[in-house]
Amino acid sequence: MNRMNDFLKDGERIDDLERGGYRVIQNPGLFCFGMDAVLLSAFAKTKPTDRVLDLCSGNGIIPILLIAREKAKSVTGIEIQSTSADIFKRSVGLNGLEDRVEVICADIKDRDAFGEGEYDAVTCNPPYMSAGDGIVNPGDAKALARHEIMCDFADVAKAASKALKSGGKFFFVHRPRRLTEIFAALKDCGLEAKRMQNIHPKEGSPANMILVEAVKDGRVQMVIEPPLIVYDEKGEYTKEVRSMYYD
Amino acid sequence: MNRMNDFLKDGERIDDLERGGYRVIQNPGLFCFGMDAVLLSAFAKTKPTDRVLDLCSGNGIIPILLIAREKAKSVTGIEIQSTSADIFKRSVGLNGLEDRVEVICADIKDRDAFGEGEYDAVTCNPPYMSAGDGIVNPGDAKALARHEIMCDFADVAKAASKALKSGGKFFFVHRPRRLTEIFAALKDCGLEAKRMQNIHPKEGSPANMILVEAVKDGRVQMVIEPPLIVYDEKGEYTKEVRSMYYD
Repeated sequence: MNRMNDFLKDGERIDDLERGGYRVIQNPGLFCFGMDAVLLSAFAKTKPTDRVLDLCSGNGIIPILLIAREKAKSVTGIEIQSTSADIFKRSVGLNGLEDRVEVICADIKDRDAFGEGEYDAVTCNPPYMSAGDGIVNPGDAKALARHEIMCDFADVAKAASKALKSGGKFFFVHRPRRLTEIFAALKDCGLEAKRMQNIHPKEGSPANMILVEAVKDGRVQMVIEPPLIVYDEKGEYTKEVRSMYYD
Repeated sequence: MNRMNDFLKDGERIDDLERGGYRVIQNPGLFCFGMDAVLLSAFAKTKPTDRVLDLCSGNGIIPILLIAREKAKSVTGIEIQSTSADIFKRSVGLNGLEDRVEVICADIKDRDAFGEGEYDAVTCNPPYMSAGDGIVNPGDAKALARHEIMCDFADVAKAASKALKSGGKFFFVHRPRRLTEIFAALKDCGLEAKRMQNIHPKEGSPANMILVEAVKDGRVQMVIEPPLIVYDEKGEYTKEVRSMYYD
């Protein structure tokens, strides 16, 4: 028996990804995935044969999107919050992906949370904001997902570097505000940023998101891709963004 | 007497900047200024009261453009090649700018070439390519202007940091390829990149130039400006680029 209600707890809903019939469980009271997850899964140049590690997985949107896009053979997702990891596990069950997606509830800083030098690619949609930025309730699941309370970007970069094979790729989304700090943290652990794309909410606006590809043990060689504009002059998604959701 | 011929040597010509009647002397056999100089002078947020230092001045296009745009009170230009510095000096004379533009023929690595902590802003259109990239004839003026033979970006950043007051601004143009190395070199000498703009030759193409503003002793806070597209679908300059040349 595979009835919806078997998978849902109070306050949760099931969202269709409109891609191969895949669905995710979300609890709007905790945290819902946003455009950043969709953009990251489109930006990531992972291969169908890749073994991928996803850090700070939340409810598992990135692992499930990578499978839905045929961009991974298997994905291991690490999430520190047990409530989110629990939703993630049930979404894996809902999609019948138990043999391809593994959910680990652990701290990415834990040496034993995942294997070293084993992954072809790492993905991450990390907390964007410094622990001190804005009002934070450290017990709040949303705060933990958005603020660097449990880990900062240097921790994320270290975990990615540890997990990757030499030449393996790390794909992540972040805010432009901290770009120089991000590049420095990558270099500090042997990851070289090689490709980036800036996301602008509309034409003529500064970027509000960046997508970055870094390579373990890579040499200096950056490509800045054509920018992605999210909304057109009518306030509707541009063709490029629509294609990321529905193509 | 102020006849053109008094200012020109063999192979040289005078180009009108179409801005306030200012002109520059150029020798196409040596090196002519390109769009990068025009974009940098438009990008630089210097003030009419600023004392500016321009590194790797070549024939002095940036100092003269900054004066033409009313973006500096005075500009000191440093150029290591005597043939270029000689053209630069005659362009200063041609424009009657002897009291506002100073030409120094020196190595930017020379401790005594310019004053320390004295400048409000530094500008630079440096050699883009590593000394080893491509075929280089080290005696060739064009090669010296394009390749890091006499100085590399770390030398440029060090000179800029030395020259600037705390809080002073460093504006430069470079290639995206070396972005992470550039940010690292800036951080190494107390300059924090705070603003950048990517230049794309046309819509849908990767960036081929970057404009960067770094602040001496600044804190981490990056703004990525709306991108600049150079050519429209007809192969003509976009409105934004035309305005930089003629407004």
